[in-house]
Amino acid sequence: MRKVLVIGIGAGDPEHVTMQAVTAMNAVDVFFVLDKGATTADLTEARRAICERYVTGRDYRTVTLADPPRDRVAADYRGAVRDWRDERARILEEAVMAELGEDGVGGILAWGDPALYDGTIRILETIAAHGELDYEVVPGISSVQVLAARHRVALNRVAGPIHITTGRRLAAGWPEDCDDVVIMLDADLACRAYRDQDIDIYWGAYLGTPDELLIAGRLDKVIDQIESVRREARAAKGWIMDTYLLRRA
Amino acid sequence: MRKVLVIGIGAGDPEHVTMQAVTAMNAVDVFFVLDKGATTADLTEARRAICERYVTGRDYRTVTLADPPRDRVAADYRGAVRDWRDERARILEEAVMAELGEDGVGGILAWGDPALYDGTIRILETIAAHGELDYEVVPGISSVQVLAARHRVALNRVAGPIHITTGRRLAAGWPEDCDDVVIMLDADLACRAYRDQDIDIYWGAYLGTPDELLIAGRLDKVIDQIESVRREARAAKGWIMDTYLLRRA
Repeated sequence: MRKVLVIGIGAGDPEHVTMQAVTAMNAVDVFFVLDKGATTADLTEARRAICERYVTGRDYRTVTLADPPRDRVAADYRGAVRDWRDERARILEEAVMAELGEDGVGGILAWGDPALYDGTIRILETIAAHGELDYEVVPGISSVQVLAARHRVALNRVAGPIHITTGRRLAAGWPEDCDDVVIMLDADLACRAYRDQDIDIYWGAYLGTPDELLIAGRLDKVIDQIESVRREARAAKGWIMDTYLLRRA
Repeated sequence: MRKVLVIGIGAGDPEHVTMQAVTAMNAVDVFFVLDKGATTADLTEARRAICERYVTGRDYRTVTLADPPRDRVAADYRGAVRDWRDERARILEEAVMAELGEDGVGGILAWGDPALYDGTIRILETIAAHGELDYEVVPGISSVQVLAARHRVALNRVAGPIHITTGRRLAAGWPEDCDDVVIMLDADLACRAYRDQDIDIYWGAYLGTPDELLIAGRLDKVIDQIESVRREARAAKGWIMDTYLLRRA
């Protein structure tokens, strides 16, 4: 049976790659890349460099698939994501069947950890449900972990909980039952709404890469700095990926 | 200045180790081990094996420190943990000053990720505050990530939040604002209290090791099985480390 390995490759630094990921990459016949276009050309290039560095003495091919467009302004956010995922699943399934031999091994390199805000596992679930494909998952270092490591903080306080959520949800309200909140996928620094509270922020962008940016401090003291650094970095590079931990006193 | 590297080495499989961790391990003069006694002799041995495998062409020493006793029945749980941490910090600081030269590099290998339910970063913070030590953190694959990878599930649902908490807190109530909850440090399967609800559980023990155990299903259908498998495994090995994801419909 055809098999696809979903391989977490860390947040950006090629040194985040695990031994398990290297072993997995070296079993792959064909790497499939869903290309999100120019904004992530840097990321596609970084993926290629990781393959070149770690796959040794083995021929492999890379098949790049045009990523279908996604409706980013849909009122039904989750519905739009599901439609997009189904279309990606269809494109990937077609490619896997066409490009892999019957016992072939495909690979998909996922930034960060495939289990955290990444749709690849769900896409593979969808395809595997048709019964002609098996898949495995190799965990990777997520940007949340790099954020904590670079700021040298633990994500939780002693025996305390951690809540990981999105900017969209934080904008709707601070999560109950938790004072340590990690925010991902935040286009607009939703934390600004909480600047009047006693909160520390640990912010990072392009984590693990040479362009890494780190700012930490009292939210009310550093939010303007984060906003301007973020705006300039996005203008200069054309894209930004950032995440942050909010720690309420 | 003396430096200590806190190095995440993954959940148990030596292949979880990252390239960054290998680089860090190869810069270490002295590894410090806080020995928790017989119950974790297996883990101490696994740590030693990781050093032997990945540290190449370099002399290093290992200094084992007797871990101070911890009051596990204290009414003030967090206070007891703080006292214990302060005592560990004192012991480690003394050892670092005695064993490392002025520009020496110490290493502490942390299971999983040092940012997640691990006290090492806080201990180093405490010591570093005295001004005679610097430290860095290298992230590692946590058991939560291995759990998700082995069950081939994402931790979050589309754009949904994740709550990571302890068995003790789950016993006190289901966290608000979240249907996807990861439980760590649970001695008594606190999830049993929720068996009448429509919840799926993804459970794993000794994740990433040859003894790995995985059970998934509807909570009410599999909780008895998990309980008996867990009891037998703990009796056979003398200790258990497990974690699980609860996914409410």
